[in-house]
Amino acid sequence: MSIQRITILGTGLLGGSIGLALKSISSDYYITGYGHKESTVRRAVEVGAVDQGTTDLTDSVSDAQMVILCTPVGMFGEILLKIGPILTPGTIVTDVGSTKRSVVKLAQRHLPAGVHFIGSHPMAGSEKRGVEFARTDLFQKNLCILTPTDQTNSAAMAEVEWLWRKIGMSTIHLSPDEHDRLLADISHLPHLMAAALIAMPSQAALGLSGKGFLDTTRIAGGDGGLWRDILLDNRDNLAKSIGQLKAQLDAVLDMLDHNQGETLRQWLDHASARREQLMQQKLHELNAE
Amino acid sequence: MSIQRITILGTGLLGGSIGLALKSISSDYYITGYGHKESTVRRAVEVGAVDQGTTDLTDSVSDAQMVILCTPVGMFGEILLKIGPILTPGTIVTDVGSTKRSVVKLAQRHLPAGVHFIGSHPMAGSEKRGVEFARTDLFQKNLCILTPTDQTNSAAMAEVEWLWRKIGMSTIHLSPDEHDRLLADISHLPHLMAAALIAMPSQAALGLSGKGFLDTTRIAGGDGGLWRDILLDNRDNLAKSIGQLKAQLDAVLDMLDHNQGETLRQWLDHASARREQLMQQKLHELNAE
Repeated sequence: MSIQRITILGTGLLGGSIGLALKSISSDYYITGYGHKESTVRRAVEVGAVDQGTTDLTDSVSDAQMVILCTPVGMFGEILLKIGPILTPGTIVTDVGSTKRSVVKLAQRHLPAGVHFIGSHPMAGSEKRGVEFARTDLFQKNLCILTPTDQTNSAAMAEVEWLWRKIGMSTIHLSPDEHDRLLADISHLPHLMAAALIAMPSQAALGLSGKGFLDTTRIAGGDGGLWRDILLDNRDNLAKSIGQLKAQLDAVLDMLDHNQGETLRQWLDHASARREQLMQQKLHELNAE
Repeated sequence: MSIQRITILGTGLLGGSIGLALKSISSDYYITGYGHKESTVRRAVEVGAVDQGTTDLTDSVSDAQMVILCTPVGMFGEILLKIGPILTPGTIVTDVGSTKRSVVKLAQRHLPAGVHFIGSHPMAGSEKRGVEFARTDLFQKNLCILTPTDQTNSAAMAEVEWLWRKIGMSTIHLSPDEHDRLLADISHLPHLMAAALIAMPSQAALGLSGKGFLDTTRIAGGDGGLWRDILLDNRDNLAKSIGQLKAQLDAVLDMLDHNQGETLRQWLDHASARREQLMQQKLHELNAE
């Protein structure tokens, strides 16, 4: 194991869970945590997610072999700009952001030659925030998407992939473009919809809500600032997805207007069959592990 | 306890669970199950949800003190038309349908004087179908909405309310109009959205789905025919809700187009706070029980 000194930028739920997971694997890891608030950093040290913490960004990365960006996506530009001049050749930089085109471009712009950036999107998390909710097993059995480009250093790519696998993730590779396009439909639009569904009902209607409504809107409980960054960053793909959703709603309105029961039943049955197929696939994956 | 002979029309998940719950409370109940398929009725008898089963609709209700309609909403008209002439004065009829205006009107049209209809919507269920999934405790700690009108017989209303409470439900009263209006936002639109969200993504995108997506789309796994009936029956309220949702999507598109990060964050934070408030309310209700 060549990489031992790792700096986690942003010691919240994800950063903290990476620290806990790595420390549980080997005491050889020496993990530095950076946070912009003293109290956040202190809590990360207290729960054992990092060995040392600091609120000095450049200081936190000066000795790192690997740097992992775990702040909201909207802060990546500023951070890469500041740490670029400090990082020494051979340092590997990766991230946990939910969008990938922008961070790959920012890394190309701000990181010096010899510093290797690998885009990562570990698909794990929670609507909870903060290192208090960090868990050693947060990443276990989840998927991490890596987004190499034709300029990606393959040894650095292998190191990053190895790290995610070590903390329990399976990995796949997608281009940054492909990643952002697919995630619009499978993650960003669903978040938006959950938020819209919880925003609409009157208090009287909310009082009637059952388990179905709670499940459907669970992801809307996330942090607004975090999701604002993600949705804005992927706005072109998201706008296309919203357009497709509106077209579906118009089609359903048409079925309702014209009392087209058979067409509506087929549409609902198709959705139900897709949901069932997806569940079977997920159960199969779990059993195969 | 005056009512002992109960007929359940439709021995699926809900009808079967009512039978199991009543039989678990008292062996004095004698429950007749009607289904249009011989095999369905036989399974209901085998699992102990009903004492006897039949595929003869009029025969099934001839001796009943209470009749509970548990078929899909779209069959209520035909059933009430057929059983109306058979029922003797004093018989109480109720239902488990997810819409209430239409069944109340159908009952007024088809049931003779002296037969008392009470609209019920026990808010429990599952995306599963069939008496195989019936459970004694399906209704426990869930809400049942009763929809009396100014013509409702109060003694019959008390009998029906007593029955739902005995199998573990809390009850509230709403007018049929109010019920259907509130349910559009809290149940029918969320179902439609879950179906649209699972229908859209490519197979590649579905392969990236995580727990959030599975939760958001869980309710779309329901039976298409059942939901077609519900959505068509409440089409006027649902069309209004779809219109409001489209207006929200347009507002978000506008925020994305104009890079209005602060407005978007406020919208997302508002949704998140409402979700959190709803969870606290539900936890409070559970603890109060």
